[in-house]
Amino acid sequence: MPVVHVDLAERSYDVIVETGILSSAGSSISALRLGSKAAVISDENVDTHHGDRLAASLDAAGIPYSRHVIPAGESSKSFEQVASLCSELAAAGNDRSSFVIALGGGVVGDLAGFVAAIFYRGVPFVQIPTTIVAQVDSSVGGKTGINLPVGKNLVGSFHQPRLVLVDPEVLRTLPSREFLEGFAEVIKHAAIRDAPMLDELAQLDPTSPDVPADLIARNIAIKARIVEADELETAGTRALLNFGHTIGHGIEAAVPYGEMLHGEAISLGLRAALYLSCKQAGLSQDAAQSVYRLLEHFSLPTVLPEKISTDTVMERLSRDKKFSAGAIRFVLLREPGDAFLADTVSKKDLEDAINALRQA
Amino acid sequence: MPVVHVDLAERSYDVIVETGILSSAGSSISALRLGSKAAVISDENVDTHHGDRLAASLDAAGIPYSRHVIPAGESSKSFEQVASLCSELAAAGNDRSSFVIALGGGVVGDLAGFVAAIFYRGVPFVQIPTTIVAQVDSSVGGKTGINLPVGKNLVGSFHQPRLVLVDPEVLRTLPSREFLEGFAEVIKHAAIRDAPMLDELAQLDPTSPDVPADLIARNIAIKARIVEADELETAGTRALLNFGHTIGHGIEAAVPYGEMLHGEAISLGLRAALYLSCKQAGLSQDAAQSVYRLLEHFSLPTVLPEKISTDTVMERLSRDKKFSAGAIRFVLLREPGDAFLADTVSKKDLEDAINALRQA
Repeated sequence: MPVVHVDLAERSYDVIVETGILSSAGSSISALRLGSKAAVISDENVDTHHGDRLAASLDAAGIPYSRHVIPAGESSKSFEQVASLCSELAAAGNDRSSFVIALGGGVVGDLAGFVAAIFYRGVPFVQIPTTIVAQVDSSVGGKTGINLPVGKNLVGSFHQPRLVLVDPEVLRTLPSREFLEGFAEVIKHAAIRDAPMLDELAQLDPTSPDVPADLIARNIAIKARIVEADELETAGTRALLNFGHTIGHGIEAAVPYGEMLHGEAISLGLRAALYLSCKQAGLSQDAAQSVYRLLEHFSLPTVLPEKISTDTVMERLSRDKKFSAGAIRFVLLREPGDAFLADTVSKKDLEDAINALRQA
Repeated sequence: MPVVHVDLAERSYDVIVETGILSSAGSSISALRLGSKAAVISDENVDTHHGDRLAASLDAAGIPYSRHVIPAGESSKSFEQVASLCSELAAAGNDRSSFVIALGGGVVGDLAGFVAAIFYRGVPFVQIPTTIVAQVDSSVGGKTGINLPVGKNLVGSFHQPRLVLVDPEVLRTLPSREFLEGFAEVIKHAAIRDAPMLDELAQLDPTSPDVPADLIARNIAIKARIVEADELETAGTRALLNFGHTIGHGIEAAVPYGEMLHGEAISLGLRAALYLSCKQAGLSQDAAQSVYRLLEHFSLPTVLPEKISTDTVMERLSRDKKFSAGAIRFVLLREPGDAFLADTVSKKDLEDAINALRQA
């Protein structure tokens, strides 16, 4: 089975990618002796599909646990939900000798990871990601957090998991749209660090829910190497993971929640970033086209709907970005696999790139 | 001026103890280049007495800042207050390049430190403690946190400050009772690690608000050495700081909030711990008496009021303590300055010790 080791000194851990590993999660977890009791945090949808299977494997491994189910959706990333979970955990008898298991997508991972970071000033936690984005991206790297009314992920902790268990089989229960949106981040990883993987992705059948474990592991490894180089996002390397995200986030924030999935907004953001890379970083039109076609291969949107105005996107985008001396830190590609942090992108450039998303 | 260096590798910092340093806080802080903007968090009482002086020193040092004032009292250590502060900070334009200044006693330090730990996944913070307990104890060591309805300090982070500024002069504005309660923790530090300091404390005039900076610094150093040995409270050394706190917390939780100050409850807890140290650890009656008289020297209570029943204290105490195999981890003294973690104290022993607090 493919194992990606994330090397962060005393905070190192393994990401194990294996079809069916959810059913034996208990024994993988038990081997690490993380604590006397587990608190499993999941959302309604994931709990319905996979909760009992995880519970059975914990039973089999002799790990006592409590189960905590939150409403599905981004709105659960709130202080209210954190407060309620912490009280629930304490009421269920969890304490400093307990640990947390996050079973779910990005929302569950971010939220449960943050609860683990602050409950009794920090307890260990295990990620069992159940979406593609969570598997290749958000479950690895230790970013946990919640939203404030004024902005996403403004509160949180760096708290690395002690183990990540990735089961490609759980992706089968995802609705088609949620399955496909995940490929935006997969393509992003390949685009910034691994050009050959772009070709492999083009060979995948987007209608098949069976994503090869090996491909997932290699995509995770891209993220892992970047996190190792810049764990706390202080060196600039980790910022490369924001490729496609500056404009993507602006678009995501410009529509009512739920109308556009995160990966769909990022797909548009990637196209805009490719446009700017051609203009400013010498990326060839052919190379940009190949990534662009890959987004289309996975049915990801590449044209910005008319009703989303450029002004609105710019306004949302500038809420959490700083234009120092008229420019913004923005990730560009010199060529596929070679991303860098540029400080040459102006407000006007961003507007141009957003407008360019109007044409098919 | 006395400086206590807390040596924690890349998380090391100085505690500067100097009469009047509040007025030059801005320049001490400015030298560290912690960020582009400060968020000063204080409570109503402290802000009234000292807020403007700190603000003036920040102005003089050219540090932009926002001011945030919370209600005084333990009830501010809540998720609601954290959520509201985080939103206030963001609304005032603070972000990942900002830092936090905690100006106040233990509640403000714990709360503001926790906000600093989680705002934008952690920003630097400075402690300016304004009570004796905060100066010698809670501002040093990086424990930050809030309460849950079911228990105190069940949520938080280890987040070390980048600087602690201790101004003995600010103690002059404390009401007499709040001034004196602080000596419970001062005596505790001396009792567990520095017997000669007990004699020096006996020479202090408890009616004078001028506590020598040198004595405060030496008392802080006791805490600093223990934190250095066991930053995350995993080795057992840091648990020695709980001397007097097991029963003290039980008593504190047994009365309505505000009726008994923390230091007053700890004074009773210390007497109970001395009682058990004589019974189980060979502490001499003379030595116990000398600490006991020191508590009385500072007008700290040593007799448990009749209306607080032993059963209630035991019930409150066992909410957050585990009696594994009938015993509890409890700090005892072999002799003044020599504390250790014992596992010989039973529930029955605790009851006896609480009952012994009935006699003057």
